[in-house]
Amino acid sequence: MAPRQSIITKEVIAIMYFEFIEYQERLRKIKEAMYKQGIEVLLVTDPANMNYVSGYDGWSFYVHQGVLVIIDRDEPIWFGRQQDSNGARLTTWLNDESIRGYQDDYVQSKLKHQMDFVADILKESGWDRRSLGVEMDNYYFTGQCLEQLRKNLPQTRIMDANLLVNWIRVIKSDKEIEYMIMAARIVENVMQTAIEAIGPGVREGDAAGKVYQAQIRGTPEYTGDYSAIIPIMPSGIRTSTAHLSWTDRKYETGDMVLLELSGCKYRYHAPLSRTVMIGKAPAELQDIAKVVIEGLNQTIDFIKPGVTAEEVEQKWREAIAGSTVAKESRIGYCYGLNYPPDWGEHTISLRPGDKNVLQPNMTLHVMPGIWIEKFGFECSEPVRVTDNGCETFVNFARELFIK
Amino acid sequence: MAPRQSIITKEVIAIMYFEFIEYQERLRKIKEAMYKQGIEVLLVTDPANMNYVSGYDGWSFYVHQGVLVIIDRDEPIWFGRQQDSNGARLTTWLNDESIRGYQDDYVQSKLKHQMDFVADILKESGWDRRSLGVEMDNYYFTGQCLEQLRKNLPQTRIMDANLLVNWIRVIKSDKEIEYMIMAARIVENVMQTAIEAIGPGVREGDAAGKVYQAQIRGTPEYTGDYSAIIPIMPSGIRTSTAHLSWTDRKYETGDMVLLELSGCKYRYHAPLSRTVMIGKAPAELQDIAKVVIEGLNQTIDFIKPGVTAEEVEQKWREAIAGSTVAKESRIGYCYGLNYPPDWGEHTISLRPGDKNVLQPNMTLHVMPGIWIEKFGFECSEPVRVTDNGCETFVNFARELFIK
Repeated sequence: MAPRQSIITKEVIAIMYFEFIEYQERLRKIKEAMYKQGIEVLLVTDPANMNYVSGYDGWSFYVHQGVLVIIDRDEPIWFGRQQDSNGARLTTWLNDESIRGYQDDYVQSKLKHQMDFVADILKESGWDRRSLGVEMDNYYFTGQCLEQLRKNLPQTRIMDANLLVNWIRVIKSDKEIEYMIMAARIVENVMQTAIEAIGPGVREGDAAGKVYQAQIRGTPEYTGDYSAIIPIMPSGIRTSTAHLSWTDRKYETGDMVLLELSGCKYRYHAPLSRTVMIGKAPAELQDIAKVVIEGLNQTIDFIKPGVTAEEVEQKWREAIAGSTVAKESRIGYCYGLNYPPDWGEHTISLRPGDKNVLQPNMTLHVMPGIWIEKFGFECSEPVRVTDNGCETFVNFARELFIK
Repeated sequence: MAPRQSIITKEVIAIMYFEFIEYQERLRKIKEAMYKQGIEVLLVTDPANMNYVSGYDGWSFYVHQGVLVIIDRDEPIWFGRQQDSNGARLTTWLNDESIRGYQDDYVQSKLKHQMDFVADILKESGWDRRSLGVEMDNYYFTGQCLEQLRKNLPQTRIMDANLLVNWIRVIKSDKEIEYMIMAARIVENVMQTAIEAIGPGVREGDAAGKVYQAQIRGTPEYTGDYSAIIPIMPSGIRTSTAHLSWTDRKYETGDMVLLELSGCKYRYHAPLSRTVMIGKAPAELQDIAKVVIEGLNQTIDFIKPGVTAEEVEQKWREAIAGSTVAKESRIGYCYGLNYPPDWGEHTISLRPGDKNVLQPNMTLHVMPGIWIEKFGFECSEPVRVTDNGCETFVNFARELFIK
């Protein structure tokens, strides 16, 4: 079982997934980055970043909420809907004076906006005369959020702090890796369940239902959390594209099924892709599978600290050279802690032009998915960069599965 | 089985959930609203609104994408990632010249932004000299999206078109109601599954796994789709707040469990809340349950066309007057078609100050959830406003369930 840290300095005992000192270290790194960028107040709206800073965990990101990191204040300030304040008390290390709930008439209203509430918090301590970093391209920071802050805070220099916290998240702690290993054990069960469930005459939705149950049931030792992306499992012609799911249709002999699935524990993921063929695999698919799996193997063997993201992609390209396989899109990305709609971190992408240097404890989903006119093929691996190479999280055969 | 419409005028045969004429009617209403607001081009980024206009259905909203409605062009233009273009071909009624995929180097890049691509589309037809409506407070329209459009389109008058499409979605067609009824059959199975699964010694995650499977397995006639909100099912002290989920913990005698669950079919929802008590219910909980259920019953009896949203809330308040129950937050909202993170439509809320008049075929989740210091109680109903009253979608006992 994963150890948990109870913070007992608060009125309510919160259940945290990391030691207090780990949150302090994260906060120190964030403030260091803020200092370098000239940001005195950071408005964190990405739910994964909120969790990273404070521990906050709840499905409440459908209303505006966030965490304010003030460069010279010890505790960040959580703000959100009043009815979620107890959620903040139960899942964060913050004391009550750092938990600010807004009244319900701010919710989905034309008359009031939650960023007015944020502006009021800043004004009451004179922080509106400081520079304010915002996560400009985060899903949960809308155009309206930006407009309301500008309107309410004419004295404030608003700066782009997009991905500031994500770039700190990119290097995982040992405890984070431990949770990603737990998620990996789950996804092995999930993938096995999917491959067993798929077969002629089975409704796609029935297979998907079993996949979901396996994700949440987890292992005998621990259960799983919801994944930031649903099970992606198109079949037949729907495998020609990247992000479709199941239907009412029954699988038929001759179907191909793409599986991009994940395990998740304490919001840390283990994504994994495999492909299933129901019946005899066409020669073209067999050829593609062979090339992609060999390319994946060589690419993983190449990954080590000191190489750049684009060099990894270049290695893939060399490995598949001379084959019919072509891949226009990136072949992988950093992943870890996340909430819907994405388990990717939006930092490093394995593609031409990405000059970022890989470092130990970066975690990558190496995902050379192929989607061509009539069908697709996927075989991926989540990996961790180690001190002198890389290791995979998951133990699952890299092959085209025939049912 | 639900009828489906195949559009065979295209190169690829798309599977659509509504007849072509229904999409045309939606588009007509949207253009009418655009005309009234002086909007010549509408940028639709809300995934539910994209689906409503075009049929597009895929888990690809973690990259920027959208549908452009041009007031004098017959077909809207879908834009998204190149690898999702086949998804657009397979799920929309649009012809190939209206499907525009961007290259992968736009994805999560500091160098290029997808709104640059959108600006290019507008410029190539001179539409950049027109007024452009954007969904200012939609999750998927970020501050950066707004900034990039402003930078790229100096001649364009950018206007707030937030909820323009949502307000059209608020009145459901007969076919939409049919899908919501299908979702209601699913949620009955889901809630029954949850209540049966919960008991002393059961891991919360094992109960949640069964709930997920029931959501997707659906009914013998059809399977279910993923819900826009995960199963919300906190227990014990975690019932004091609104949006927590399961843990590894085993249920114990004396636990209370809140269940806010949903069925979903073709992206149309049926949300439902109930509360389970494991063991003997404390007197305080029994009292609250009685008051809330009686208040819910009276509120539902009151709902009819012509009354305002705030009058419905007022009725609830009268029904619980004199009891110890207090409810600060809204007691319901419009719902229907949606994607994560919310199944609510962000239009009408049942709360003081909401002067919107209820009309036939509006669909509301009447949800007077109570979260107090130590615990909570939930009992809700999804309802449809009829020509002279309202009817419930779901047939499930309104009571505190004792295990």
